Amino acid sequence: MLRTIPHADVTELRLDRPPANALSPELLAALRDAVRGAPGDGARALILSGAEGMFSAGLDVPLFLELDRDGVRTAWITLFETMRALACSPVPVVAALTGHAPAGGCVLALCCDWRVQAEGRFKLGLNEVQVGVRPPGPILAAAERVVGRRQAERMLCTAELFGVDEATRIGLVDEVVPPGEVVARALEWARRSLALPPRTLESTRALCSAELARSFDRMEGEVLERFLDEWFGEECQGALRGLVERLAAKRG
Amino acid sequence: MLRTIPHADVTELRLDRPPANALSPELLAALRDAVRGAPGDGARALILSGAEGMFSAGLDVPLFLELDRDGVRTAWITLFETMRALACSPVPVVAALTGHAPAGGCVLALCCDWRVQAEGRFKLGLNEVQVGVRPPGPILAAAERVVGRRQAERMLCTAELFGVDEATRIGLVDEVVPPGEVVARALEWARRSLALPPRTLESTRALCSAELARSFDRMEGEVLERFLDEWFGEECQGALRGLVERLAAKRG
Amino acid sequence: MLRTIPHADVTELRLDRPPANALSPELLAALRDAVRGAPGDGARALILSGAEGMFSAGLDVPLFLELDRDGVRTAWITLFETMRALACSPVPVVAALTGHAPAGGCVLALCCDWRVQAEGRFKLGLNEVQVGVRPPGPILAAAERVVGRRQAERMLCTAELFGVDEATRIGLVDEVVPPGEVVARALEWARRSLALPPRTLESTRALCSAELARSFDRMEGEVLERFLDEWFGEECQGALRGLVERLAAKRG
Repeated sequence: MLRTIPHADVTELRLDRPPANALSPELLAALRDAVRGAPGDGARALILSGAEGMFSAGLDVPLFLELDRDGVRTAWITLFETMRALACSPVPVVAALTGHAPAGGCVLALCCDWRVQAEGRFKLGLNEVQVGVRPPGPILAAAERVVGRRQAERMLCTAELFGVDEATRIGLVDEVVPPGEVVARALEWARRSLALPPRTLESTRALCSAELARSFDRMEGEVLERFLDEWFGEECQGALRGLVERLAAKRG
Repeated sequence: MLRTIPHADVTELRLDRPPANALSPELLAALRDAVRGAPGDGARALILSGAEGMFSAGLDVPLFLELDRDGVRTAWITLFETMRALACSPVPVVAALTGHAPAGGCVLALCCDWRVQAEGRFKLGLNEVQVGVRPPGPILAAAERVVGRRQAERMLCTAELFGVDEATRIGLVDEVVPPGEVVARALEWARRSLALPPRTLESTRALCSAELARSFDRMEGEVLERFLDEWFGEECQGALRGLVERLAAKRG
Repeated sequence: MLRTIPHADVTELRLDRPPANALSPELLAALRDAVRGAPGDGARALILSGAEGMFSAGLDVPLFLELDRDGVRTAWITLFETMRALACSPVPVVAALTGHAPAGGCVLALCCDWRVQAEGRFKLGLNEVQVGVRPPGPILAAAERVVGRRQAERMLCTAELFGVDEATRIGLVDEVVPPGEVVARALEWARRSLALPPRTLESTRALCSAELARSFDRMEGEVLERFLDEWFGEECQGALRGLVERLAAKRG
């Protein structure tokens, strides 16, 4: 479900869980471990990519809905650990957004250093509220870091999905290239960073991600339990079940 | 001085204190209570509007100048409570900026979720410093949330009033429509938010306003008293009296 | 090495240390003292300018490389004090960017209230990482205040030098004028601020710089010593020596 593709000093991690690269707890754990392990295996930069047309559709809601409270707690902790592994990686991480990136797909992209987006009728955004999920603090913090406070709040509170042009305008993506060139362009960006003194860059990146890192520390204990209360509340469960039914109807 | 106009699920609160919708302590208290009370009365979103050509000219300076220290303290606390009621409302609030919105008028607009501005030769900005009033922390925090730190500091420290185009460019207003369509457009925006799961949206909005909320908590005790010292200082009192004299001369 | 040029109420401080206005500890101390002293000598606003074509090339690396740990500690503390003197000055400070402003030159500019840039093929940016220097917290904080978090992190982590157009686009400079008009335009901006009530403006500016001020307070004790460890680490020393050799080769 996760392919590791070496490009000399740069390692590409490609989400490969058809049909939509939905984020199961297992995929998240695999991604977290791969991001954590890559620098030790010699990677000096990372690319996070998806399938052509679909970077990731976000959390695997049908699967998450089957989990009990302990299972949901573990799954969200795994998502936070994955976000943190990306955002606080000792080496730069470029998101190669090969297609749509709604919800959890957008969240992963927001934790990277640079976002290269495929041209086309693709949608990105934080539409969690639309499906009854209240975005936890680290998602707001990750969005604020990239698009600023105003647009981050707008993204969360309107649950809007943006086309590529609007996503570019608000700074949600940094570059737009034809679909076939996304990974190559991400690789180019990653390679440019290899020219910088690596320890100095690592220490500078740690300074820049320190505030986001603190948002993960705050997402524990009581704060996490209250978030789970909302998750198992009537509104969220009803909205998620509605989503699963719509998905099932679509597949026929 | 404050009209309540129902539009089904959405309640419009219209400032109605001719000639300039100047914010008296009474109007502020009425607005605060209306914003606090509306959700309990069934409003699922709010619109804050003014008169055609004049949203609000800001604090009623002639009236504020007559107040003693206790009166000024209470009046400013009422303004902070009104700001907080808007910014931390459990339901979305749209500002229908029907005309000019300088100083306190701009402050109220900054505490809303979305700002629809009337086209025309209208002026908006935080020109408090121009009239000798040092903007307290929550005004900086409210501005920073909407236009970012750089433009917020610029607004405060230059005391500039912006035309509609520049206000749009810096993100101070979100949309510009012909004067006759401002309330209708605000209503449209408000109605779109009604499609979202209400408790999830409320909880998300609380996350987004938490930092601004803390700025109100800090505006108490010694910090408030030092602010009042500045208010009753020579420079502020002189500048405010000068303003009142210019207003009186203008009215003939 | 620092000229003081009075323009009635406004004092221009002109960096004058040929050939590149490189910042020696002595120049930094002179600038710090001049900024601190000017308001007491009657200056109601300040202009910080450089030579035509070169505002400042940043720290005098050959000179810094000769310093021992105590010398480097003192030199960086002097830079932080200079930054603080500019950012927390009781009177407005305008940067008249008469030419290039890389690294430390850009840092000084970021601590001013407004930046007027000379038109031309000039370069600005925070390229510290390129030469092995990890930017300390106050430099990130100063950049974030001006260009926002996203662009500040981009500046630090890519070490890119920007042309005047891109610098304008990201908000790193506020205005661009022909080289011969930079100081005159800075003077115009400074004079406009003289029309505002001075104590109110001073108190408002203090509110706006409070967060940056805290970043200087955090740059002490252990945090400073760890920064010096990085400075005297192999990677930084090697990169700085490489730079000095390239500079020497260039001069023939």
